[in-house]
Amino acid sequence: MSEFSATDHAHMARALRLAERGAWTTKPNPMVGCVIAHGQTVVGEGFHQYAGQPHAEVFALGQAGARARGATVYVTLEPCAHTGRTGPCADALVAAGVSRVVTAMRDPFPQVDGAGFEKLRAAGIAVQVGLLEAQVRELNRGFLSQVVRGRPWLRVKLGASVDGRTAMASGESKWITGAAARADVQRWRARSGAILTGARTVIADDPSLTARPEEDQPVVPPLRVVLDATLASLDQVRVQAGDAPTLYLHGPLPTRVADHDQVHFEQIPLHEGRLDLRAVLAALARHRVCEVQVEAGATLSGALMAAGLVDELLLYLAPTLLGDGARPLLSHLGIAALAEQQRLRVVDERRVGADLRLLLRPAG
Amino acid sequence: MSEFSATDHAHMARALRLAERGAWTTKPNPMVGCVIAHGQTVVGEGFHQYAGQPHAEVFALGQAGARARGATVYVTLEPCAHTGRTGPCADALVAAGVSRVVTAMRDPFPQVDGAGFEKLRAAGIAVQVGLLEAQVRELNRGFLSQVVRGRPWLRVKLGASVDGRTAMASGESKWITGAAARADVQRWRARSGAILTGARTVIADDPSLTARPEEDQPVVPPLRVVLDATLASLDQVRVQAGDAPTLYLHGPLPTRVADHDQVHFEQIPLHEGRLDLRAVLAALARHRVCEVQVEAGATLSGALMAAGLVDELLLYLAPTLLGDGARPLLSHLGIAALAEQQRLRVVDERRVGADLRLLLRPAG
Repeated sequence: MSEFSATDHAHMARALRLAERGAWTTKPNPMVGCVIAHGQTVVGEGFHQYAGQPHAEVFALGQAGARARGATVYVTLEPCAHTGRTGPCADALVAAGVSRVVTAMRDPFPQVDGAGFEKLRAAGIAVQVGLLEAQVRELNRGFLSQVVRGRPWLRVKLGASVDGRTAMASGESKWITGAAARADVQRWRARSGAILTGARTVIADDPSLTARPEEDQPVVPPLRVVLDATLASLDQVRVQAGDAPTLYLHGPLPTRVADHDQVHFEQIPLHEGRLDLRAVLAALARHRVCEVQVEAGATLSGALMAAGLVDELLLYLAPTLLGDGARPLLSHLGIAALAEQQRLRVVDERRVGADLRLLLRPAG
Repeated sequence: MSEFSATDHAHMARALRLAERGAWTTKPNPMVGCVIAHGQTVVGEGFHQYAGQPHAEVFALGQAGARARGATVYVTLEPCAHTGRTGPCADALVAAGVSRVVTAMRDPFPQVDGAGFEKLRAAGIAVQVGLLEAQVRELNRGFLSQVVRGRPWLRVKLGASVDGRTAMASGESKWITGAAARADVQRWRARSGAILTGARTVIADDPSLTARPEEDQPVVPPLRVVLDATLASLDQVRVQAGDAPTLYLHGPLPTRVADHDQVHFEQIPLHEGRLDLRAVLAALARHRVCEVQVEAGATLSGALMAAGLVDELLLYLAPTLLGDGARPLLSHLGIAALAEQQRLRVVDERRVGADLRLLLRPAG
């Protein structure tokens, strides 16, 4: 029998929905939601919206006021125990006199990592962990990847015809997927900490690489990252314009290029004549990027896949055929025999407008 | 307001389910289901199972007996008016004294085509047409194509990786899709009047091309059709073995090849050095094939697509990547610019085991 009641599930599900509201703004912090209740009666709720601003528990406690005393607190992540830009939430919960705290999971962030639970238990508060943990891990896969693996979660976004082609041989590709798919991509960009592309894409398409979801909701702009060993794409200025920061990752250069405004340059070691992709991810981790969305061509996307660095493939398939003369979805995968195929699993599939959207992750 | 009641809808939906039971056996006849009812009370039902055996109405009337008098008859297709291998159903309905007949659609078969309705109306029976017509047209798209267009409905089945590749460059391809997808293909084969392939596939894979669904239900074996201009694949005997008939369609040959057992040969005119694909479909129409399932390679499937002869694409996508050195889904599409792309629409998409199954049809 589960240690959690149906009421517990309902409140934690609500806390999860609240947490999701921070998806476009909490970066690089985790999304956290909180519900404070007496039985079925909710007395306070909140979510973490911006890094540096109060945590979910603080908003919920503020709403609950004196009604927090003796209540159960549902919070998607272990309450913090350290004084960062805000005070420790565990202390605030103790001070409010809550009697029980239910969470989905321990926060692996080194300054928390069980210390929040200890503070609560030391104060006589009942602590239960593990409710809707899988869902919370899914929501915060970027944050968890950054904290636990020391590198961001890497998502490769691709759009193709059902015969797996992204563009004509000439490069002609506007538009293969429909308006609904393109609007959907903007939402995935909005939750990303960085949007990464290669010099060839910048030169060919002159993209702005900003997150512009249709919804009238705040977005903390993702870092725009251009992999450009020789800075050959610098003339294309749209990726440097607007109010989002841009980071060029380049190889050894004869002269150092100066940062200006929100445009930064950083040298990355080469590996077999190309930018070392692991070093690229390490650099992004240093910039505290949790989720990277790659929107690049077949070569860079394929190289990331071949290196085993792709955590998920966001694939939009348009119901059209471009033929075998058109450009491939991914190249340089280095697959010579069927035994070397890159097996994936379908995590989610749905219709988006007239197109299909698949979310795929490495199998096994 | 609809001329049909909720009870009408329910009975016709049941008749449609009954009709579907004939999917593997009625070929080349249409699937037809029949329900006889007084209000909500069903007094008889039946479906057409085998060509040459009684129609759906006969089974339903037999079950209803004297209770057919004054009843409403729900039948998915116009009752026949001609004496074929069975007597006219319209006469039988009149004789049974039914008071109302509700059908989905007129039967375009030249010997019926409204004559059934005339007989019923002449006898004072109320006739209503059009309930669930779209669903019945969908079910009998093969029969309708054969009768109305004079050629079979053509379905191309393909299995590929999500990057649109069917096999390694070497031809290695076992297995890309999973067991559930392969079992599903057998069900689509079972409802087909013919399974068509090319000489290259026969030589490379030595397929048996029989319908072997897992379900323990009768199947009228589809005709196996091999397009082989020079009869280069004759040494591969699996496609000639078993209890299904086989038809080789070939070009001009120095000597005539004799039919034997269930193996037949027929000459087809050439068009630009290859078998004329329209002539192939005309030949299959003469054999009264209603639905053709193409299970061939990229060249033949692509040529059918380029010729505008494909009515639907049954595409199984396995969550795996084979890379850009692997074989394409379709070749010879002759698409040089994006404006020439072959636009499709997704009619159905679902997960089959770990794979995705898409049913696509030409757009517009």
